[in-house]
Amino acid sequence: MRIAQVAPPFESVPPTRYGGTERVVSLLTEELVRRGHDVTLFASGDSTTQARLIPTVDTALWRLDEVRDPLPYWAITLGEAYRRARDGEFDVVHSHLDFQAFPLAALCETPTVTTLHGRLDLPDLPRLYARFPEAGVVSISDNQRTPLSEVGVRWLRTVYNAVDIERLDFNPRSGDYLAYLGRISPEKGLDRAIRVAKLAGLPLKVAARLPLKDTSNPVIRADREYYDGVIRPLLRDGQVEMIGEIGDAEKPELLGNALALLFPIDWPEPFGLVMAEALACGTPVVARRRGSVPEVIDHGVTGLIGESDEELAGQCQAIHQIDRQTCRDVAVRRFSTAEMARSYEGVYFEEMGLPRNAERAVVDAA
Amino acid sequence: MRIAQVAPPFESVPPTRYGGTERVVSLLTEELVRRGHDVTLFASGDSTTQARLIPTVDTALWRLDEVRDPLPYWAITLGEAYRRARDGEFDVVHSHLDFQAFPLAALCETPTVTTLHGRLDLPDLPRLYARFPEAGVVSISDNQRTPLSEVGVRWLRTVYNAVDIERLDFNPRSGDYLAYLGRISPEKGLDRAIRVAKLAGLPLKVAARLPLKDTSNPVIRADREYYDGVIRPLLRDGQVEMIGEIGDAEKPELLGNALALLFPIDWPEPFGLVMAEALACGTPVVARRRGSVPEVIDHGVTGLIGESDEELAGQCQAIHQIDRQTCRDVAVRRFSTAEMARSYEGVYFEEMGLPRNAERAVVDAA
Repeated sequence: MRIAQVAPPFESVPPTRYGGTERVVSLLTEELVRRGHDVTLFASGDSTTQARLIPTVDTALWRLDEVRDPLPYWAITLGEAYRRARDGEFDVVHSHLDFQAFPLAALCETPTVTTLHGRLDLPDLPRLYARFPEAGVVSISDNQRTPLSEVGVRWLRTVYNAVDIERLDFNPRSGDYLAYLGRISPEKGLDRAIRVAKLAGLPLKVAARLPLKDTSNPVIRADREYYDGVIRPLLRDGQVEMIGEIGDAEKPELLGNALALLFPIDWPEPFGLVMAEALACGTPVVARRRGSVPEVIDHGVTGLIGESDEELAGQCQAIHQIDRQTCRDVAVRRFSTAEMARSYEGVYFEEMGLPRNAERAVVDAA
Repeated sequence: MRIAQVAPPFESVPPTRYGGTERVVSLLTEELVRRGHDVTLFASGDSTTQARLIPTVDTALWRLDEVRDPLPYWAITLGEAYRRARDGEFDVVHSHLDFQAFPLAALCETPTVTTLHGRLDLPDLPRLYARFPEAGVVSISDNQRTPLSEVGVRWLRTVYNAVDIERLDFNPRSGDYLAYLGRISPEKGLDRAIRVAKLAGLPLKVAARLPLKDTSNPVIRADREYYDGVIRPLLRDGQVEMIGEIGDAEKPELLGNALALLFPIDWPEPFGLVMAEALACGTPVVARRRGSVPEVIDHGVTGLIGESDEELAGQCQAIHQIDRQTCRDVAVRRFSTAEMARSYEGVYFEEMGLPRNAERAVVDAA
């Protein structure tokens, strides 16, 4: 099958820095190629892929100082992809640009499917989705759909994000510390993680880049104020170890040796890739019941889900009762790239009804 | 001819507040209707028009507190317009959304023309325009094109903006003060206007809204800092009268009774509607040579163009030598709605080659 994967131009595919969407697009693209599909990837020119790469920009935009406005780059990306779609180069266009392809999809004979990677609880979105009832979309958790439940969105399927199982080594024996991996921002709950670790009497290792000092962006400014005002005073007694930003290569070390991943979020996280990464290493998760958490974590099987600091602290003390082999097995079964690619093939062939005869020599790893 | 006019959704058409683009779209739309065309206007639902109005949003977005992100509204606007274009409802789509329609135009059988209303000297834009060499665009001054001179843009024509000549009464006798009308921001040069007025020994009336105290937007914050740090200290001696923000109804009073409009800008203004408004009232302009100024003002005929504060002050003292009737006559000839509509008909029929037989009963006011 001739598939166009359309990625945002802000990070390369796969990403060199933080970039959940680009990571998932990369895993999906490579696995679809491996399964015999003819895949074209629209992404920044510094991306790496076995698919045919059509560069939308020369390098990932975060590398360029002079980028002032993201709008021209959305237009460039969509223009490149749909000009070729118009000329009949693909059987399906798979967009990862939020809703941005919707107006074009309505004009193009080649069908489009969009995976929604972000949060959907923003006040502008119901107005938008109500205008595009024909646009087929994939959610990355069932919970992600909640804010649009009053709108007639054409949900095709939920496909969970995959993690790179092969690179996330399973560690059958846990260490003695709790791990936090993610941005330092109020909704991610690092302050809560620190309080919970203290209550539980356990050390906490925090892998996170410090917020930038760029005060012109209100989100970054809020993160910075949160770090300076809330987090720093909590770091004084030495039970918390700040290890800075880590790359993919360092994740198995941090996650695999942890007693548990702490994921005490305070927002409707649409998926939460780090939970799946921890499970792949055999490490269970102690998390708050927000967003996708109850879908990704089976309470009592791959982790424990609580609410208050005290409850979460108690769960950290009891987490050794969770079987690490089960965590790994569940991750392989539910969050492998093979599973994600099979599920997207289901979207293309079943929900969208595209003909299987467009396929070539599909190899299923199952 | 069946024409779609596509306006941004942030202001109504015509605007109730500042909104140069929406004002021009309104004048063009009403005049095209008057000339017998079948015009559909895509704009916010609180717009007023003799054309068929397709609301893209219920009310202009500036009225809504909960608008966080402009992107969904661009998608809604483009989706509404091009779904109908796809169904063959128009002979031409005329977009006023910067470059946003370019990817859609490439997929639609109905031809699109875009009028570029904004500045083009932003670093991201050459990269964008290089990707859309087939997109036909109209500039609002020849000078506006300069930053893209290295890129193969398909310029169709320059069409100057129109002002509402009928509502801008001609005043054959000038008053004794200088007028400033525009935003309070460094590039508009209010500080320079105040210094020039003092040097010339003439009173200055300033019609401008004070910058908002919203510090989350870096542009607004810079304007506020400019007002507090640069402008306020210049207001102490009483030669400057701040009259606040004015509406259309008050413009003839302020502009028509002025000795001259001061337009000492420090940026490449793509058109500068207030210059044409002043001329329509019979009031000449003293301006700096930036952007469109030498195209809109004929030095020695409808105003005087200088550079330094001293030169501009001398020109203010000499401005009574400019004939006010000539200013009015030039405005009627070059900046009337009839002239703008005729010029856009030229774009549709000549540069785009659309068949005139799609017209109905066109009435030319010439």
